[in-house]
Amino acid sequence: MHKHYQYIIERIQKINGSVYEEAQAYLDRLAKPPGSLGKLEETAARLCGISGSLSPEIKKRCVIVLAADNGVVSEGVASAPQAVTAIQTINMLEGVVGVNVLAKQFNTDVTVVDVGVNANLEHPALVNRKIRKSTGNIVREVAFSRQEAETAIEIGISLVKEAKEAGYQLIGVGEMGIGNTTTSSAVLAGLLRLKGAEIEKVVGKGAGLDDGGFVKKKQVIQQAIALHQPDSVDPIDVLHKVGGLDLATMTGVYLGAAYEQIPVVIDGFISVVAALCAVRLNPVVKAYLFASHRSFERGYAYAIEELGLEPSLHLDMRLGEGSGCPLMFAMMDGALAVLKNMATFEAASISTDYVEQVDKLKEATF
Amino acid sequence: MHKHYQYIIERIQKINGSVYEEAQAYLDRLAKPPGSLGKLEETAARLCGISGSLSPEIKKRCVIVLAADNGVVSEGVASAPQAVTAIQTINMLEGVVGVNVLAKQFNTDVTVVDVGVNANLEHPALVNRKIRKSTGNIVREVAFSRQEAETAIEIGISLVKEAKEAGYQLIGVGEMGIGNTTTSSAVLAGLLRLKGAEIEKVVGKGAGLDDGGFVKKKQVIQQAIALHQPDSVDPIDVLHKVGGLDLATMTGVYLGAAYEQIPVVIDGFISVVAALCAVRLNPVVKAYLFASHRSFERGYAYAIEELGLEPSLHLDMRLGEGSGCPLMFAMMDGALAVLKNMATFEAASISTDYVEQVDKLKEATF
Repeated sequence: MHKHYQYIIERIQKINGSVYEEAQAYLDRLAKPPGSLGKLEETAARLCGISGSLSPEIKKRCVIVLAADNGVVSEGVASAPQAVTAIQTINMLEGVVGVNVLAKQFNTDVTVVDVGVNANLEHPALVNRKIRKSTGNIVREVAFSRQEAETAIEIGISLVKEAKEAGYQLIGVGEMGIGNTTTSSAVLAGLLRLKGAEIEKVVGKGAGLDDGGFVKKKQVIQQAIALHQPDSVDPIDVLHKVGGLDLATMTGVYLGAAYEQIPVVIDGFISVVAALCAVRLNPVVKAYLFASHRSFERGYAYAIEELGLEPSLHLDMRLGEGSGCPLMFAMMDGALAVLKNMATFEAASISTDYVEQVDKLKEATF
Repeated sequence: MHKHYQYIIERIQKINGSVYEEAQAYLDRLAKPPGSLGKLEETAARLCGISGSLSPEIKKRCVIVLAADNGVVSEGVASAPQAVTAIQTINMLEGVVGVNVLAKQFNTDVTVVDVGVNANLEHPALVNRKIRKSTGNIVREVAFSRQEAETAIEIGISLVKEAKEAGYQLIGVGEMGIGNTTTSSAVLAGLLRLKGAEIEKVVGKGAGLDDGGFVKKKQVIQQAIALHQPDSVDPIDVLHKVGGLDLATMTGVYLGAAYEQIPVVIDGFISVVAALCAVRLNPVVKAYLFASHRSFERGYAYAIEELGLEPSLHLDMRLGEGSGCPLMFAMMDGALAVLKNMATFEAASISTDYVEQVDKLKEATF
């Protein structure tokens, strides 16, 4: 019998190809050289295809932040103590950290979800979906059970359903969890079938690891992969063996967004690895994804290349939290402004008849 | 005796280094790993250094668009007829082209200045500073006289002075002029001392030239450089011999912005070449410049590398008009939001004492 998440994965629909093409054709009629607005045009057309409308709206939008702890931090792979996950989650609920500030600037709400923080968090704004407190130390044991991974994915799917019911038209993903660049590198290594020393190319210094910690981090990930031998064609196997609850839930958010036909923005390294998990579960998800910024974290470039997406923002950011999403939302606002408010060649000629060159203008690809 | 623009060039001041460093130190105290907001932090610090204030404002901002025609279009180097310059300038004044739409989305005004359009433009919103109608065909003659270049630079300087007096705190530059990727490639070749076939590396297809036109364009630029032998260490010599009136005026805008201590945003290929002219006239200008998007036009990468700047937006845009500036203004809004609204480590700990890990948080570089 199928589980709910399997049902969802099987029912994800392609974006509306005819609306997408209609939007592209319309964009080519705007008073500019065809394609000269680059990714803004591609973004606008895709938002049309996703919504099935030539006038999509992304006015109400949120970043869904998954907070969870990782048992592997006991190996000394993170530059901050585990307690910082709880502290910064509360600070995020109070609205004072990076993602909050950028979200507010760009008319975005932040939804903070505890899926595995190693503390009893209480806050009126917290969405409590805790699966377990922290994960296992992946050097010694699986991070969490396959069933817990499935639960996390279903939570992710339900978070999008709830967001859609609350009127959100655009979603971004973020995370808070000390140690999650380690688990993300491990999951990416698993998905890319990297072995031994090859793994190092997808491992970075995270939030600011020193050289000794960096060596340790690379060893730990190699050990975890060697111990668990995750199955690269089974993302859920990879996630539960060497991943994090943030990664698994985020995978569900991408799947849910595609199922609910809501555009979803990738933030940095953790979220791009989760996006790759979702696309491996169903390649149709890709058309619902928008890359935001090129994370400074080393593995990001490999994951985004594997996905076949290109980030629009090159800001050398590596904060996480979903902080890149509101910035990308602003670019998407720009894309829709072009779609809605630019004149077509025909309309543009109305005010230009005095030049008596209207016919030339219409023909020109200037 | 010194001319006015020479007086301005000599009196450009460095940005306030102590305020810049104070801003950086403050940004390091915010509740995030130091430097993890990348270019947003660098942008915020530089806006502080430019304004001399730890709480700079960029609420009132505009894109100054220089419209001018280029005699070289008679060689068949552009994909659109010259009349399109006038038509699109009027459309821009009517508020219906790309830069208008993006400007409106990001609370930006557009100031349209005629410095050399080959038509008698009339519009209530037009700023008429026409130096001459079109330029000479650079394959046969200089584009314009050295004195006209100096006039253009002084017009650019005065445009910034007027903008400052009108309350603008941030400026972007744009252009409208059929044929101006040809003149920009020629100026860049001159500044970089490129000769013969070397020149091809800084020549692109502009708005959409076909293969035959592209071959012609490369030949034309090589011929113009060979004929005029512009002096690479004298940007005004290069500008008047093979440039455009948009480029020369824009050079003045950059100089004026630095003189008036106003941050100024580079758009695409034409504006990055003008920025290089300004920085060659006084290297101190560089600290007032912000790159916006990486233009798709071929020469852009060479010019921005020579300037030592990195664009934040990778959108494959090649529209011109200043269309990339409002998008960058949004990123700068984000940078200032971080500066103004994020909690420091100390402030963040206020709401987190229940975790009893405050001291660890303060020490951590998570």
